[in-house]
Amino acid sequence: MYYTIDIMEKPFAIGIDVGGTKIAAALVDCHGHISARSFALVPSDIDTEGVIALIGAAIAEARGDLSVDRIAGIGVAVPCFVDTEEQQLLHCVNLPLAGCNLRDRLTQSTGLPVIMHNDATLAVLGEERYGVARGLNHVLMITLGTGVGGGLFLDGKLFGGARGLAGEIGHITIVADGDPCPCGGKGHLESYLGRAALARKAQEAAAGPEGSGILKRAGGNVDDITAETLLEAAEAGDVCALDILRQAGDLLGQALASFVNVLNPELIVIAGGLSQRASSLVEAARARLREEWPPGIIDVTVATGQLGNDAGILGAAALAFSPTVLDALAS
Amino acid sequence: MYYTIDIMEKPFAIGIDVGGTKIAAALVDCHGHISARSFALVPSDIDTEGVIALIGAAIAEARGDLSVDRIAGIGVAVPCFVDTEEQQLLHCVNLPLAGCNLRDRLTQSTGLPVIMHNDATLAVLGEERYGVARGLNHVLMITLGTGVGGGLFLDGKLFGGARGLAGEIGHITIVADGDPCPCGGKGHLESYLGRAALARKAQEAAAGPEGSGILKRAGGNVDDITAETLLEAAEAGDVCALDILRQAGDLLGQALASFVNVLNPELIVIAGGLSQRASSLVEAARARLREEWPPGIIDVTVATGQLGNDAGILGAAALAFSPTVLDALAS
Repeated sequence: MYYTIDIMEKPFAIGIDVGGTKIAAALVDCHGHISARSFALVPSDIDTEGVIALIGAAIAEARGDLSVDRIAGIGVAVPCFVDTEEQQLLHCVNLPLAGCNLRDRLTQSTGLPVIMHNDATLAVLGEERYGVARGLNHVLMITLGTGVGGGLFLDGKLFGGARGLAGEIGHITIVADGDPCPCGGKGHLESYLGRAALARKAQEAAAGPEGSGILKRAGGNVDDITAETLLEAAEAGDVCALDILRQAGDLLGQALASFVNVLNPELIVIAGGLSQRASSLVEAARARLREEWPPGIIDVTVATGQLGNDAGILGAAALAFSPTVLDALAS
Repeated sequence: MYYTIDIMEKPFAIGIDVGGTKIAAALVDCHGHISARSFALVPSDIDTEGVIALIGAAIAEARGDLSVDRIAGIGVAVPCFVDTEEQQLLHCVNLPLAGCNLRDRLTQSTGLPVIMHNDATLAVLGEERYGVARGLNHVLMITLGTGVGGGLFLDGKLFGGARGLAGEIGHITIVADGDPCPCGGKGHLESYLGRAALARKAQEAAAGPEGSGILKRAGGNVDDITAETLLEAAEAGDVCALDILRQAGDLLGQALASFVNVLNPELIVIAGGLSQRASSLVEAARARLREEWPPGIIDVTVATGQLGNDAGILGAAALAFSPTVLDALAS
């Protein structure tokens, strides 16, 4: 076990969600209520020391004048591959954190236990502790944002695999040798569901007459069409935009069916900005999953996340309260 | 816990692998050595009582005159969806076993504890206890036979998911809306790697000049080309046959990369009849996986199974020795 906590003595934790463009921290009580927040923007040219300083400042601000004796620990959600057992950051796409000993640095500066994990993985913990997946044992979460991420809560624990790197749900192959993925791969789920992919589909459609509504929204300039343009067009009822989202949702539904085959979860949580904006996509995914797995032998529910952008913060705080949920550390 | 075992008092278990065409049982000691075997063919028109009688006879023959006091229990590998917690057979494709209370029937007739699980899932347990995956904690097994099956050993336990139905590795979508799968789905791994799929590819190739070698082996009759024809042609060095197997292996490699992304296993075991026959397929899968996941952050080994056709029997015996490895029963 990593450390033990007397929740009566220490009824607070600090959860921090470190992203490529912003850092959000909160002081969270053991029921998942947020009693203070802090927030910082991350400059694009920031260096390692700069990020560590920003994280430290966000923690200090969220803590306010609460005594460290009342705080169980600090949970840090990072957009990185995390070796959870060694608490090392192996690979970070958007921040210069790989290889830096963030855990020890923060422990030294705060005097509190610090525990880190991948942001998408902590989001599923947030939903399991305080959100839509409360009390369940087998939950798969898929986050639709700029990229497609995810996390696994299996058998009542966060599932990390051999080295804590499991849950990279966006990078399963859904179309062999298919469209390019920002990760360098081909035909991944993110190749079709990421924002860049949706923008590309919208641009392709805008070249034909059926996409004229989308094109108009971008001032007639195909290159200005983004995923946002597509979402706005769909929200306004544009048939072509809705069609693109439904096609993406149908692919997502096939991927969800794959996850059901492999992992037999009770609940699939679809979260992330896109899930809140594109109900036609989520509905199409649900319909395709139902087609592949009619109710009966396998019963799986598909729900959208309940915690919104706070899932990562709350999951990070939950990890600080219950580090044993991190299976690699529990043994 | 299901039951506890004094391995000194009871150093044997009976493992039985119930298939659609044959039943194999063995008396196994706690080191995984087989000291007696039995074997029965399953007539295609057999009814439920007939199967139960055949299983009972196979158990009795494997046990011989060993006292039941020396036997820890009976593990039964079945080609079914098994609700592991309730020990119910939910769905069986090739045998009339769904809904029959096989566990209680065998307990009554033998006086021994009986525990059942899906055959492919028990094969991974066999390899983990006595074969190529010995002592590892995160192992994915994929079995290439008539169909494509698999099993998951995660975090030091058999992984069953919410209802014990996890591990249906052959039915992930690898080509969205792709070729038909015997299960009724589309574009599944089994749609490209199952024997029927390989036969279809060989038949398609035989329609052109490049497939003349394959066609010749089937006496010039396209309809007589089976997966066996393809394997024999490949073994004889036929370029077209090798190409078909390599293409299938490349698809398999993409699927393996997906599993690495989602589950981060230490070892992937490729087993089943096809894996022993088609080294070019296995090599192509390995190469594609290495391309998708170059060594570095993720280290995963791909190995072929060590136990051959005994993996199921040995896994079933291992389950009888250590029922707590079945996570759904362990809690």
